[in-house]
Amino acid sequence: MDKATKIEPRLLKGFRDYGLQEQASRQTMFSKIQTVFEQFGFLPLSTPVLEYKEILMGKYGDDEKLVYSFKDNGDRDVAMRYDLTVPLARYVAQNLGSLPLPFKRYQIAPVWRADNPQKGRLREFYQCDVDVIGTESELSDAETIACCAKAIESLGVTNYKIRISDRAILSTLSRDAVRILDKVDKIGVEAMAKEMVDRGVSDTEITMAKKLVSGDGVAMPERLAKVVENLKQFNLKGQVEFDATIARGLDYYSGTVFETVLPEKPEYGSICSGGRYDGLVDQFSNQSLSAVGGSIGVDRLLDALQELGLVPQTNGIQVLILNLSSDLQSKYIELADQLRSAGINTELFYEATKLDKQFKYGERKNIPWAVVMGEEEIASEKVKLKNLATREQTEVDIGELSNFLKKS
Amino acid sequence: MDKATKIEPRLLKGFRDYGLQEQASRQTMFSKIQTVFEQFGFLPLSTPVLEYKEILMGKYGDDEKLVYSFKDNGDRDVAMRYDLTVPLARYVAQNLGSLPLPFKRYQIAPVWRADNPQKGRLREFYQCDVDVIGTESELSDAETIACCAKAIESLGVTNYKIRISDRAILSTLSRDAVRILDKVDKIGVEAMAKEMVDRGVSDTEITMAKKLVSGDGVAMPERLAKVVENLKQFNLKGQVEFDATIARGLDYYSGTVFETVLPEKPEYGSICSGGRYDGLVDQFSNQSLSAVGGSIGVDRLLDALQELGLVPQTNGIQVLILNLSSDLQSKYIELADQLRSAGINTELFYEATKLDKQFKYGERKNIPWAVVMGEEEIASEKVKLKNLATREQTEVDIGELSNFLKKS
Repeated sequence: MDKATKIEPRLLKGFRDYGLQEQASRQTMFSKIQTVFEQFGFLPLSTPVLEYKEILMGKYGDDEKLVYSFKDNGDRDVAMRYDLTVPLARYVAQNLGSLPLPFKRYQIAPVWRADNPQKGRLREFYQCDVDVIGTESELSDAETIACCAKAIESLGVTNYKIRISDRAILSTLSRDAVRILDKVDKIGVEAMAKEMVDRGVSDTEITMAKKLVSGDGVAMPERLAKVVENLKQFNLKGQVEFDATIARGLDYYSGTVFETVLPEKPEYGSICSGGRYDGLVDQFSNQSLSAVGGSIGVDRLLDALQELGLVPQTNGIQVLILNLSSDLQSKYIELADQLRSAGINTELFYEATKLDKQFKYGERKNIPWAVVMGEEEIASEKVKLKNLATREQTEVDIGELSNFLKKS
Repeated sequence: MDKATKIEPRLLKGFRDYGLQEQASRQTMFSKIQTVFEQFGFLPLSTPVLEYKEILMGKYGDDEKLVYSFKDNGDRDVAMRYDLTVPLARYVAQNLGSLPLPFKRYQIAPVWRADNPQKGRLREFYQCDVDVIGTESELSDAETIACCAKAIESLGVTNYKIRISDRAILSTLSRDAVRILDKVDKIGVEAMAKEMVDRGVSDTEITMAKKLVSGDGVAMPERLAKVVENLKQFNLKGQVEFDATIARGLDYYSGTVFETVLPEKPEYGSICSGGRYDGLVDQFSNQSLSAVGGSIGVDRLLDALQELGLVPQTNGIQVLILNLSSDLQSKYIELADQLRSAGINTELFYEATKLDKQFKYGERKNIPWAVVMGEEEIASEKVKLKNLATREQTEVDIGELSNFLKKS
């Protein structure tokens, strides 16, 4: 292929790669979150990335225009999932007869939104969701939120604030008023009031909105008070705070709504949110089912963890076996096999090039140890082990190598 | 919302959900494969689901028509990834300056092909890939294949056969001839010859193809012989066999090609395949880079494992705390917290309904144990633990409960 026909390697706007170290950290984070989700009695569900477009439409309000949709080869209108909640509702409605209720599931998977890319907001991002379908109990609201909070705690975060409310508080407000109120945290009360005037929101509503922002004389609904009381029994490390301005964007919320911020990193916005959405499953089914869920925005959270110095540590590659001579290759393979069987992540250098080049490779990959094993070392059954950071070298019996590396 | 506007909950053809138990097994399988990949010194890379369409085009031969592509909101031609190899080549070309070579990565992720759905072949399926970019060494071919094989072994599969060849053997054959030869395993040699005649393949080529099928006098190329010799040093449990008819469909293969079949379940076809593709990165870059990789078709493999009785066991939910009275809820939460902190997957029944209903729920979810804890049990600090399979009941000190459940 000649130079003229080369294709420029590039990414779509709002999409990104995650390189080796970063993806390893992400996977460790997913794994820790998954562990907590399972401890709380949630099991995994997998739904497809593509759904019939009509399944997703009418659920996201104004944001519906951000759904990626197209006609497939069979001329069907299809759409890429926008969240994990609507596909879950579709799944439950489709399988109602065979599911024990309440149905508890988690899903850790990417979603797509054709949003304007900005800091911490991509067009493809992961969500980690837990949901309970089929119970109205306050305990299910509380446990869902507690489960998300404990998952965040498992990443080392102890300072977080859960803001909680009930959509019922906003029931007398128009959709426009709610949408603008939802932004008050970012734009302030004056700008909120001005935008409401501009959009023709009534004076009564503006007065009501201002009252909600100040919190003066706004009573917590009885059900929400019970949820908060239950939530406290989970002994969370973070704070829980009633905030009547919490609306959450999505159209389908019907009761409890919550979001979670990191007081040390408020610029990341909410890193975990959700609520009760009692009417959603009904849109696919004649049977009415209550539901509540929470979603951790892991990509945003990982960015914040990075700044907080809390990036999950990973094993990475633990040792590099240097290739001194292709004649010794079978010995290297044998040693690699032993170390790998002992659970040690082991890389074998493929070519018997200059040792200096091999050392440099190990350093660039942040591999802590390199094994030097030539004819002499094989004969004496002792290998040289080089610390690639300090350049110090030590001798270890071949039979002891895996134990040594495990302890180091 | 009235009944008339309800949306029928349904899935696109060729797409499916994975329910709780099945997805738990799948995740366990991914996790075992991931562990082996990391033991072999591969680290994870994540690339987006959507790429510029031009990145994917011209790499898949006739199958290019199976790529899902569309215009996005910004009128860009985009496509959903068809495999994990082409995005990898794009990534490496784009980041060449900062990557230590050889670049070793794994990726476990779904891909999309608008294929005709059939048994074990969906339009959305997972691939588990390992690739090495930047070395021509035979050892890298051997280790890539060995790594895939050991990953399969980690799932309990010991009876498998790796068929290996070199594309160079087919270099004198036309594209049509190769495509038809690739099917000989399924259609037999007579049908192959007939189809070749029908497609206007020359007599010389047909004779050559028949010779390759019989294997008579077909010599293994020298490089391939070295790869096979290296591969033997990894002490695999399965067999390795030279088979000159192996072509693999994709256009980008350039050297070693391999596929893996389960002799007990030949109907699943190849459950792991790959090879060397030395020209692929060059299509995005002025620097020429050799590459080799392998891909495990996990969805097909899981179907086969199911039939072989080798489905990975999962923990599932280990205990259900029954809800005898909402007044005792804080005690239940406290106990759940203790068990979860001890790593036990614990479900809390949300509502104080009839016990019989709660037992039934636990049974339907295959939860092995249920904790009965009323006023009396709380006072005596001893709970009743019911085995939901045998209905036998035993008494356990609250402080001993997590140890008991761990051992059981």
